Amino acid sequence: MKILVMNGPNINFLGIREPGIYGKQNFEALQHMIRDKAKALGVEVELYQSNHEGALIDRIQQAYFDKVDGIVFNPGAYTHYSYAIRDALGSIPDIPKIEVHISNIHKREEFRHTSVTAPVMNAQIAGLGLQGYLLAMEALVNGLS
Amino acid sequence: MKILVMNGPNINFLGIREPGIYGKQNFEALQHMIRDKAKALGVEVELYQSNHEGALIDRIQQAYFDKVDGIVFNPGAYTHYSYAIRDALGSIPDIPKIEVHISNIHKREEFRHTSVTAPVMNAQIAGLGLQGYLLAMEALVNGLS
Amino acid sequence: MKILVMNGPNINFLGIREPGIYGKQNFEALQHMIRDKAKALGVEVELYQSNHEGALIDRIQQAYFDKVDGIVFNPGAYTHYSYAIRDALGSIPDIPKIEVHISNIHKREEFRHTSVTAPVMNAQIAGLGLQGYLLAMEALVNGLS
Amino acid sequence: MKILVMNGPNINFLGIREPGIYGKQNFEALQHMIRDKAKALGVEVELYQSNHEGALIDRIQQAYFDKVDGIVFNPGAYTHYSYAIRDALGSIPDIPKIEVHISNIHKREEFRHTSVTAPVMNAQIAGLGLQGYLLAMEALVNGLS
Amino acid sequence: MKILVMNGPNINFLGIREPGIYGKQNFEALQHMIRDKAKALGVEVELYQSNHEGALIDRIQQAYFDKVDGIVFNPGAYTHYSYAIRDALGSIPDIPKIEVHISNIHKREEFRHTSVTAPVMNAQIAGLGLQGYLLAMEALVNGLS
Amino acid sequence: MKILVMNGPNINFLGIREPGIYGKQNFEALQHMIRDKAKALGVEVELYQSNHEGALIDRIQQAYFDKVDGIVFNPGAYTHYSYAIRDALGSIPDIPKIEVHISNIHKREEFRHTSVTAPVMNAQIAGLGLQGYLLAMEALVNGLS
Amino acid sequence: MKILVMNGPNINFLGIREPGIYGKQNFEALQHMIRDKAKALGVEVELYQSNHEGALIDRIQQAYFDKVDGIVFNPGAYTHYSYAIRDALGSIPDIPKIEVHISNIHKREEFRHTSVTAPVMNAQIAGLGLQGYLLAMEALVNGLS
Amino acid sequence: MKILVMNGPNINFLGIREPGIYGKQNFEALQHMIRDKAKALGVEVELYQSNHEGALIDRIQQAYFDKVDGIVFNPGAYTHYSYAIRDALGSIPDIPKIEVHISNIHKREEFRHTSVTAPVMNAQIAGLGLQGYLLAMEALVNGLS
Amino acid sequence: MKILVMNGPNINFLGIREPGIYGKQNFEALQHMIRDKAKALGVEVELYQSNHEGALIDRIQQAYFDKVDGIVFNPGAYTHYSYAIRDALGSIPDIPKIEVHISNIHKREEFRHTSVTAPVMNAQIAGLGLQGYLLAMEALVNGLS
Amino acid sequence: MKILVMNGPNINFLGIREPGIYGKQNFEALQHMIRDKAKALGVEVELYQSNHEGALIDRIQQAYFDKVDGIVFNPGAYTHYSYAIRDALGSIPDIPKIEVHISNIHKREEFRHTSVTAPVMNAQIAGLGLQGYLLAMEALVNGLS
Amino acid sequence: MKILVMNGPNINFLGIREPGIYGKQNFEALQHMIRDKAKALGVEVELYQSNHEGALIDRIQQAYFDKVDGIVFNPGAYTHYSYAIRDALGSIPDIPKIEVHISNIHKREEFRHTSVTAPVMNAQIAGLGLQGYLLAMEALVNGLS
Amino acid sequence: MKILVMNGPNINFLGIREPGIYGKQNFEALQHMIRDKAKALGVEVELYQSNHEGALIDRIQQAYFDKVDGIVFNPGAYTHYSYAIRDALGSIPDIPKIEVHISNIHKREEFRHTSVTAPVMNAQIAGLGLQGYLLAMEALVNGLS
Repeated sequence: MKILVMNGPNINFLGIREPGIYGKQNFEALQHMIRDKAKALGVEVELYQSNHEGALIDRIQQAYFDKVDGIVFNPGAYTHYSYAIRDALGSIPDIPKIEVHISNIHKREEFRHTSVTAPVMNAQIAGLGLQGYLLAMEALVNGLS
Repeated sequence: MKILVMNGPNINFLGIREPGIYGKQNFEALQHMIRDKAKALGVEVELYQSNHEGALIDRIQQAYFDKVDGIVFNPGAYTHYSYAIRDALGSIPDIPKIEVHISNIHKREEFRHTSVTAPVMNAQIAGLGLQGYLLAMEALVNGLS
Repeated sequence: MKILVMNGPNINFLGIREPGIYGKQNFEALQHMIRDKAKALGVEVELYQSNHEGALIDRIQQAYFDKVDGIVFNPGAYTHYSYAIRDALGSIPDIPKIEVHISNIHKREEFRHTSVTAPVMNAQIAGLGLQGYLLAMEALVNGLS
Repeated sequence: MKILVMNGPNINFLGIREPGIYGKQNFEALQHMIRDKAKALGVEVELYQSNHEGALIDRIQQAYFDKVDGIVFNPGAYTHYSYAIRDALGSIPDIPKIEVHISNIHKREEFRHTSVTAPVMNAQIAGLGLQGYLLAMEALVNGLS
Repeated sequence: MKILVMNGPNINFLGIREPGIYGKQNFEALQHMIRDKAKALGVEVELYQSNHEGALIDRIQQAYFDKVDGIVFNPGAYTHYSYAIRDALGSIPDIPKIEVHISNIHKREEFRHTSVTAPVMNAQIAGLGLQGYLLAMEALVNGLS
Repeated sequence: MKILVMNGPNINFLGIREPGIYGKQNFEALQHMIRDKAKALGVEVELYQSNHEGALIDRIQQAYFDKVDGIVFNPGAYTHYSYAIRDALGSIPDIPKIEVHISNIHKREEFRHTSVTAPVMNAQIAGLGLQGYLLAMEALVNGLS
Repeated sequence: MKILVMNGPNINFLGIREPGIYGKQNFEALQHMIRDKAKALGVEVELYQSNHEGALIDRIQQAYFDKVDGIVFNPGAYTHYSYAIRDALGSIPDIPKIEVHISNIHKREEFRHTSVTAPVMNAQIAGLGLQGYLLAMEALVNGLS
Repeated sequence: MKILVMNGPNINFLGIREPGIYGKQNFEALQHMIRDKAKALGVEVELYQSNHEGALIDRIQQAYFDKVDGIVFNPGAYTHYSYAIRDALGSIPDIPKIEVHISNIHKREEFRHTSVTAPVMNAQIAGLGLQGYLLAMEALVNGLS
Repeated sequence: MKILVMNGPNINFLGIREPGIYGKQNFEALQHMIRDKAKALGVEVELYQSNHEGALIDRIQQAYFDKVDGIVFNPGAYTHYSYAIRDALGSIPDIPKIEVHISNIHKREEFRHTSVTAPVMNAQIAGLGLQGYLLAMEALVNGLS
Repeated sequence: MKILVMNGPNINFLGIREPGIYGKQNFEALQHMIRDKAKALGVEVELYQSNHEGALIDRIQQAYFDKVDGIVFNPGAYTHYSYAIRDALGSIPDIPKIEVHISNIHKREEFRHTSVTAPVMNAQIAGLGLQGYLLAMEALVNGLS
Repeated sequence: MKILVMNGPNINFLGIREPGIYGKQNFEALQHMIRDKAKALGVEVELYQSNHEGALIDRIQQAYFDKVDGIVFNPGAYTHYSYAIRDALGSIPDIPKIEVHISNIHKREEFRHTSVTAPVMNAQIAGLGLQGYLLAMEALVNGLS
Repeated sequence: MKILVMNGPNINFLGIREPGIYGKQNFEALQHMIRDKAKALGVEVELYQSNHEGALIDRIQQAYFDKVDGIVFNPGAYTHYSYAIRDALGSIPDIPKIEVHISNIHKREEFRHTSVTAPVMNAQIAGLGLQGYLLAMEALVNGLS
């Protein structure tokens, strides 16, 4: 089983960016946690981060050809307006996809309440910190109904 | 450690209500899964379901006096308009609380996109089916940052 | 054939509440008219009224187990915001359901124009006074196409 | 007693237009049903259908001079925007008027939820199929309170 | 003279709930203050609190039969969406009614700015803390013009 | 000089329709007043009334070929939604045009506040009763700057 | 008969301010035209202009004590937001009042389409240039129905 | 193959109406172009224009009985609000239909951006001038996928 | 202790302005009541009324230099749009301030429901008639928590 | 004559992405069709596709320096929010530009109804499938009026 | 060269009003800084502050007669709703005008984001503290393109 | 001291793009002016321009590692919707940042009035042409309070 874990813009600034909201652990730590979890679950994992909307779309399209078995994706701020990423995700309906947000987006600024990508995802986890990525991986392994 | 798992209106109709959306497993099955998970995690669990808004508020208040260590709550349709439940949840900020929705509310009717309770919860999990309750319990045991 | 006629909050105050709008006949009179109509139609009728949202949901769920053949329901003010009652009604799509309003809600305050329950009902009758209940019963007996 | 039953645009396409929504019976059948019901009720009935907004207004005005005792009116799509028809109906407040919709407009497209004519009608019946016309006639004969 | 002082959901959590906003005095203290004030004013007082919307409606209806001379009511979060409570209050226009809010609802979250119950009340007092109840009682005794 | 005075839907029901708002004088009286005023001003006048949107557009187009010197137009309820009439009026920018409303539309229902035709007219007079037509004719004769 | 003609902010800049919209005649010319018209109509006229909202309110209140027989008022930009002027005008319902705008406010910026003062005026004339003041005076002399 | 080319209100004023937007060629020229194109394509063509909403609906209904193979339709201003025409078009889903606008409606006034008829058409062409009709005919002949 | 009681535009027209809403007692009577109450409470009182927004701001600023101990303020129509008065009030956060409205603004026109000044006040009393001023003074003397 | 045919994000997934909406032909097929059409029209054609917003802007700017004679552009999801692409297109007003959409965007999700790029294009073709590109090329060769 | 520097309501409370937002320097200090800057730039400067909307309009009109060469204006809260000040500024298009805000209005309350005066100004500087006035003066001296 | 001056999409088309709005000087000229100003101020300057949203984010992140002392940024059209750029800017709160717009965005199309990046900037300068960049640099050197 092969899982792709993608991160969108500014997630690479974990630990630097608003630590009161996103926590003090940095992006390296997150990547280690994900790799460790993959080992524990006995699955293959690929990690990708980019600040570029187009690069994220390219990577989603590549996942189709790579026959990835599931995607965990934190689209960062693109969550709120990138209909292009939504279309890319929507074009591969057969791959299970879980949206993850580190913070509870519902208690923050108004514009963060809306996700234009969520309607083409299978599920969304928000507010569980870095743990959210791990639970999402677990859910993909358990299988989505 | 003591976890309270609450369900709001119509969740007791699992298996009967729109099985295409909520799945074919019934409410009994959900309760068994939760109790099993509690055992596996080594925690005490209490289960509560009501169709009555006021009864749910009473139960949240009782949780404060019972010194519950965490709440997993699927408020059902009250999610979208019960400011009274929101206030009850908001009055016990020190107890970690995770909102769970069985379906991905973001790909359904417009009115289901908004949660008035989420801003006073720590986190929200939506679209993972019954598994969502179990991952929420796991997260409470791991601890929320 | 068994018909359930339900009334929501404040309908028990018929004759007391705004008689210029709701008429001078009281709730007892309405119940008599409904029972008489049931006799004339040769059907069994059950009457239920509550001011409690949760109690109305419980009663709708019970109707499912009682194998009721049709529901005539005036949800009172819950019409305009109770998504929980809507979900309860929506969970029993096979039972024909007609929404009744005594007054013409479309010529009253703005908030009364919207019914969140109507989309899961088969039909709606508004503005025919108490007669609306009787015509709804008649329609259930005739059968809804 | 003289009742005018009016139909607005496209109702003459009954049986042709979206039979899944409006049923398979055609406009001829509806007219027969209405004439039969009039006989059964012992009232005189006039039938009028037009796709022309202005013609419908002319006909409403003529009803005033004809001293019609009641109007059953399905304004079709004009329901949702014809303030001119609304004004015509509003100019004859002494004639009882019931608005009929074959389908349950509340579970269809957003624009069909609003009726600009309903505020000047006495009552509205929606979702009872062709039967709605007959119950409206019955109600006019019984008298509106 | 008989005054009914009602409190809606979560007011019984006074002193526990957001003390920075609602103060540190608990619900017991409030009830004592109200009873003392009643004595000082020489009026009879009844106290009622419930988290249940339906129970509050039942109590308002009972006030009609009890021939209460005035109502002081803090509907809590129901203020903002309970059209059912509004209808109950609106059905007894002859009993003077004052709405009380402990905090200044106008400087809090957007949803708290709107009161759906206020249009059927005689007056509203907000932001005076527990003192608001006492001034409302005083005003009822002085008589509302 | 040739002036066209047009009236839209339901204006022919003057004296019948809501006399509290539109006055007790009937349409005949209005036509006499306009003809008398035309004589007094020494201008030729043509009168036209129709309930049909299309007929009003046809008449506006004919005015272009007739080389009318000015139009006084009360579009009735079409004022609020007929973009087709607006386009007809907008296609003859060189003919001065004054919109007249008998009542003060700004103190009536919300939907009457907006005029979609006014932006292509030169001026608007509202609330002066039948006198509005006469002052509009006077203004056309004086010339619009 | 005594008529008060009031002008609000920036009307004293006639001839200076946007002559393409307001014309090239200056404020002096307008005042002369009004005085001449008053003579022709055989009525007494008072003229008042101020850029101060409060001063305009003071002047409206004084008109009440002066027993003015009618007011012609161009509130300038205050038209669109001064609820204080609206209240002043609304407090003297027995004095006939006509609102005048030199330009056709309906074909200009969005914010100019709404008049908060119009609902408490008897009538409104817009787009007739300076002539609008004169026709308003004429209408006051003829009497408003 | 038989194509119906319909034009709505004011299109017959081509060449007269706002030539800067709609061009200088008149309606006769358009009709010639369409007839010539039909010949070149080897198809039968019928032309219809009316300013009357009802007449356009009648003509659409007749097309159903005439077994027309395709419709090219410029509904003029009715595009933006005629739900009655929309319903007529929607009642004949099996006939391919292309909506044409001479100007680019997206760079004009806000109200022209929305088409209520487009959702029941197969396609829309806007901004190509008179050429739009010809390309639409070509597309109908090529067949819509 | 020194209390400033301020009144905004048109409050000086008490008794003249809409007596059905504001009562028949005039402004003199209100001033007497306030002075009497001040004596009874043993506090110094200053009264100020103006129709001028700027003058009210000047007076608020002067209150800062005068070291006033509390302000009771009915801003009249400025309540609904004067952000300038709001800023003046907001610049003296240490002086307790209570907003008073004679009528219940929540059951009147839509625009009166919103107060832009309330967010910078401590409390608001509405609908208690002239008595509202007296209770506000009492509350200031009791002290705001 | 040199035509640039550009495609935005996810168009390269033709045949893979939602074939029920976009058809079964793949992107290669589209490119062949365009090249064949160019040959038939005797024009030079350049093809460009990218998922990157910035790359599309770069390419539009290059078209300015390349002196392209016309652009056919399907901006994909960027249509609905890329003001940056709009500005790029708006900066070269002298090059004719036609926007193409494969599906009829007006009968799909709400967010697809709005095009932020269309106001700076000359024309828009939607719903004609791949044929839309070919007709757009034809129109550019015929010349836009 | 003569520059007018105007300040609207509450700016005279600099140093008193919300020093966390507006800084600790008082209004005197600001005036000194402006006079010093004027000397350094070799220009004449006039300073004006008022809390009165009308007085600010009067002063803008006087600037026209004084032949001022440029205006630096901080309209304070009037920025957000004074269409009367906007009209005054708009009536003198030939005098360069720069709007200044001490704080960054875009990161404050929603109502402060909109400036109704900015559309008739040449430029706006916000968030640079008192330095904003000085840079605005510098820009006026350099000349606006 | 090191200042980074960034420009977003299409700013490199200065002189080409809408010269009536953005002026005739080209991007080279702007860069020269900025470099000259840097010399005059005795600071180091870096210039960066990109049409790519992701590249601009990358560059902002690099500025954090480069320990830049201040940023002058014209985000072009990304100003109005790029929450991703906003997040990047928001993640480096300790670096002073000034947003610059060449034109007065407040007098242009509606969508340009809103800046999603401004709330995380220190200040905004709009409408001063190329001079805006230079004044922003000056302000950074003077220091922001």
